[in-house]
Amino acid sequence: MSVAASEIATSTIRELVDANHILFDQGVVDGFGHVSVRHPDRPDRFLLARSMAPALVTEKDVLEFDFDGNPVQKDTPTAYLERFIHGEIYRKRRDVMSVVHSHSPSVVPFSVVSGVKLRPVCHMCGFLSEKGAPVFEIRDFAGPGSDLLITSGKLGAALADSLGEGPAVLMRGHGSTVVGGSLRQTVFRAVYTEIGARLQMDAMRLGPVTFLTEEETVGTTKTISTQYDRSWFLWLKAARNSAMSR
Amino acid sequence: MSVAASEIATSTIRELVDANHILFDQGVVDGFGHVSVRHPDRPDRFLLARSMAPALVTEKDVLEFDFDGNPVQKDTPTAYLERFIHGEIYRKRRDVMSVVHSHSPSVVPFSVVSGVKLRPVCHMCGFLSEKGAPVFEIRDFAGPGSDLLITSGKLGAALADSLGEGPAVLMRGHGSTVVGGSLRQTVFRAVYTEIGARLQMDAMRLGPVTFLTEEETVGTTKTISTQYDRSWFLWLKAARNSAMSR
Amino acid sequence: MSVAASEIATSTIRELVDANHILFDQGVVDGFGHVSVRHPDRPDRFLLARSMAPALVTEKDVLEFDFDGNPVQKDTPTAYLERFIHGEIYRKRRDVMSVVHSHSPSVVPFSVVSGVKLRPVCHMCGFLSEKGAPVFEIRDFAGPGSDLLITSGKLGAALADSLGEGPAVLMRGHGSTVVGGSLRQTVFRAVYTEIGARLQMDAMRLGPVTFLTEEETVGTTKTISTQYDRSWFLWLKAARNSAMSR
Amino acid sequence: MSVAASEIATSTIRELVDANHILFDQGVVDGFGHVSVRHPDRPDRFLLARSMAPALVTEKDVLEFDFDGNPVQKDTPTAYLERFIHGEIYRKRRDVMSVVHSHSPSVVPFSVVSGVKLRPVCHMCGFLSEKGAPVFEIRDFAGPGSDLLITSGKLGAALADSLGEGPAVLMRGHGSTVVGGSLRQTVFRAVYTEIGARLQMDAMRLGPVTFLTEEETVGTTKTISTQYDRSWFLWLKAARNSAMSR
Repeated sequence: MSVAASEIATSTIRELVDANHILFDQGVVDGFGHVSVRHPDRPDRFLLARSMAPALVTEKDVLEFDFDGNPVQKDTPTAYLERFIHGEIYRKRRDVMSVVHSHSPSVVPFSVVSGVKLRPVCHMCGFLSEKGAPVFEIRDFAGPGSDLLITSGKLGAALADSLGEGPAVLMRGHGSTVVGGSLRQTVFRAVYTEIGARLQMDAMRLGPVTFLTEEETVGTTKTISTQYDRSWFLWLKAARNSAMSR
Repeated sequence: MSVAASEIATSTIRELVDANHILFDQGVVDGFGHVSVRHPDRPDRFLLARSMAPALVTEKDVLEFDFDGNPVQKDTPTAYLERFIHGEIYRKRRDVMSVVHSHSPSVVPFSVVSGVKLRPVCHMCGFLSEKGAPVFEIRDFAGPGSDLLITSGKLGAALADSLGEGPAVLMRGHGSTVVGGSLRQTVFRAVYTEIGARLQMDAMRLGPVTFLTEEETVGTTKTISTQYDRSWFLWLKAARNSAMSR
Repeated sequence: MSVAASEIATSTIRELVDANHILFDQGVVDGFGHVSVRHPDRPDRFLLARSMAPALVTEKDVLEFDFDGNPVQKDTPTAYLERFIHGEIYRKRRDVMSVVHSHSPSVVPFSVVSGVKLRPVCHMCGFLSEKGAPVFEIRDFAGPGSDLLITSGKLGAALADSLGEGPAVLMRGHGSTVVGGSLRQTVFRAVYTEIGARLQMDAMRLGPVTFLTEEETVGTTKTISTQYDRSWFLWLKAARNSAMSR
Repeated sequence: MSVAASEIATSTIRELVDANHILFDQGVVDGFGHVSVRHPDRPDRFLLARSMAPALVTEKDVLEFDFDGNPVQKDTPTAYLERFIHGEIYRKRRDVMSVVHSHSPSVVPFSVVSGVKLRPVCHMCGFLSEKGAPVFEIRDFAGPGSDLLITSGKLGAALADSLGEGPAVLMRGHGSTVVGGSLRQTVFRAVYTEIGARLQMDAMRLGPVTFLTEEETVGTTKTISTQYDRSWFLWLKAARNSAMSR
């Protein structure tokens, strides 16, 4: 990365690389999907890898963008088509420090079935809205024949509106975007959104489900918020010990 | 561990470390969940790792607690928030020598669907109650806005009451707790509770299920109780050969 | 193994060890389940490991039994409780050269739901009976309070009767037993019985299923019978390269 | 391979070997299934491994065939029984440069349930026909007692007719065949046909599904067509780092 990086930026970039590898190792992303972090020195910018498979990202692949999705440096390599997801959410949500976009497989079904909502089924996904995650229908903004991708600031802003003040928004026929107040919290949420979706699917096949109350989502989120590092360092070791890291 | 440990305590601690690694490798615990064993020299105490991911536990991470959940040594590192699960069960159940608490993924759905019960679907989970595992609803004890966790002796005692004389209790929107007369038996039960739950879900989707009779639960449990070591040493080798042990 | 083994017996024993490791690596057996082969020099005997996890079996763990389940050598280690499955099937079925008993997870659900039958859903499991695999209900022979296991020659004979002339019999609340005309064919059938059961479960959830006709089971079985080695050597390499073989 | 190969043919053969390993590592093929590529120097021929498990294919196992399924060289080893799938599709479809035939497990259920169709549920499988993939019923061509395999040019031609101008055709009780304009595109489609089928099954269990519109299949396919290399090189690294490559 050619950014003249402060020490904290350097350490943030290292952690962003780890986040890429963790999200692959935990099955949240495959060849696609991406994770960004707000620039620690420049809150009007964010850090995101160049367009590539997350599992293969290294420090030198991390680029710096402004909120319009323009790379700050010149002559940068190809950027993700959907970097606008990140820029527009950072613009709208001052509290958001990190964004994960993925096609994690248990979440996609909830994006294409209008009759059900992804809801918090257990304490580990208590961060999900008790009312259910909103679903962004791109047809409402890009018409009936789009490529379903968030390839412009306008679409990114519409997605950010759909996200609202919540932690996650589903994208119809596409995937989901999860946000948080730190990189580790956001990675944690991305992993447990996938796990919670699987649990909810299994539970719904058994019968009517008792979800967390709104108060319980508050209570669990508060307690779990002290525990992110426990998962982070476990997942980091798993990613580093995996065959992909050989 | 700074405990002045007898030889048997030392060997128990080693086995507890193995149990932590096995439960992770078999998919019963992830970053969360914990396993304890009653202290072999002091039946009024139990051994449990400090608050950390089970896969990473080493001998020096094991702490000694009294039944109120107080660490015996001073200046110990942070303890699991839910150590009260262990203390209160050991207090109430003289026969219990080990306790596993987990969020194992096939069991959680049974905790949130009031119309179905987790029951013994095959001989390997014949230890489960023929009447179905009880489900602990924390709202009845902590109100509608708790964090769902067993963070006090009072809640631990209520959970122990719900467990009764059985081998397992589900915790609504949270997970389950499994007990046994030895560490190896308890680990065995935790693994096969997860496997049995998956089998039951698959079977229920096919049609009405023939579960074990009460007599069959007695018969299978008696026979299987001679076989724990077969699984233990297999799982131990798998855990030690896994990428996480590199 | 203290058997005075002919060269062909030695090579059969080696292949039986491989079969044990393959069945574990392919998810057919876990700590439990077993595979035997008819003795190549003594068709009235069979070879089977001592009571242990299949993944850990070595050549020296293989024992020789007569059809009553008695070990031929004196002072042998503990034998599998259910060796009678093997002896009674070899006694009744001259064509059977190998037997696999397992609790493979997709098959168990079909053993406990009386309204559905395991049937050949695709060409790879065309060896399954078009009429559906029989289900052995041990209550009919051992009463309502057994341990569900085939622990006597009498129960083994009843199971062999239930198997009839077919390739597989399910055992209610327990597992299944698969037979074949060679060790490799039987291992192949055990793996594809599990795969076929999973496919059938998935298909049944989509809607009414078109199974193979009886003629198609004949046609597919004939063709596939020339292909066992292709799978065998693939699975053997996978087992030998797995973490368990380190 | 004894072919007097041009430089481009040599490089094509290398890539075909990689494709074999990727398809195994991604779970599209097991011991069975095969992938071919049209000969880069001779558009009236194709390259395909000899009859063997894809995971074990090396460069010297690749053979050259004409469209009738005859090997070009003499004294070649045994060819796949179903090489006619490849020859007849290349004959009929000038645009097709590669063909994958597999029994990938989430697709087979759609081949045996006549009431449902495999359709594009998300942007990654936007290449699937909006009208649903055709299902080839071999009984219509080979009668009620075939072995379900495409073992002649006549059956290959009938399958190619069923495929029509589309990217994929399901084969009842058997598997599927996927085609594309390059080897990498075809491998990509084979992997995402499997992923999409799993997503569709999960979604259908939740409720009525919103599939992509025909316009959206065009839009997504156009965009995703620029991204195959991202997956290719990820999957290649995964395959090369896997235990099977040791």
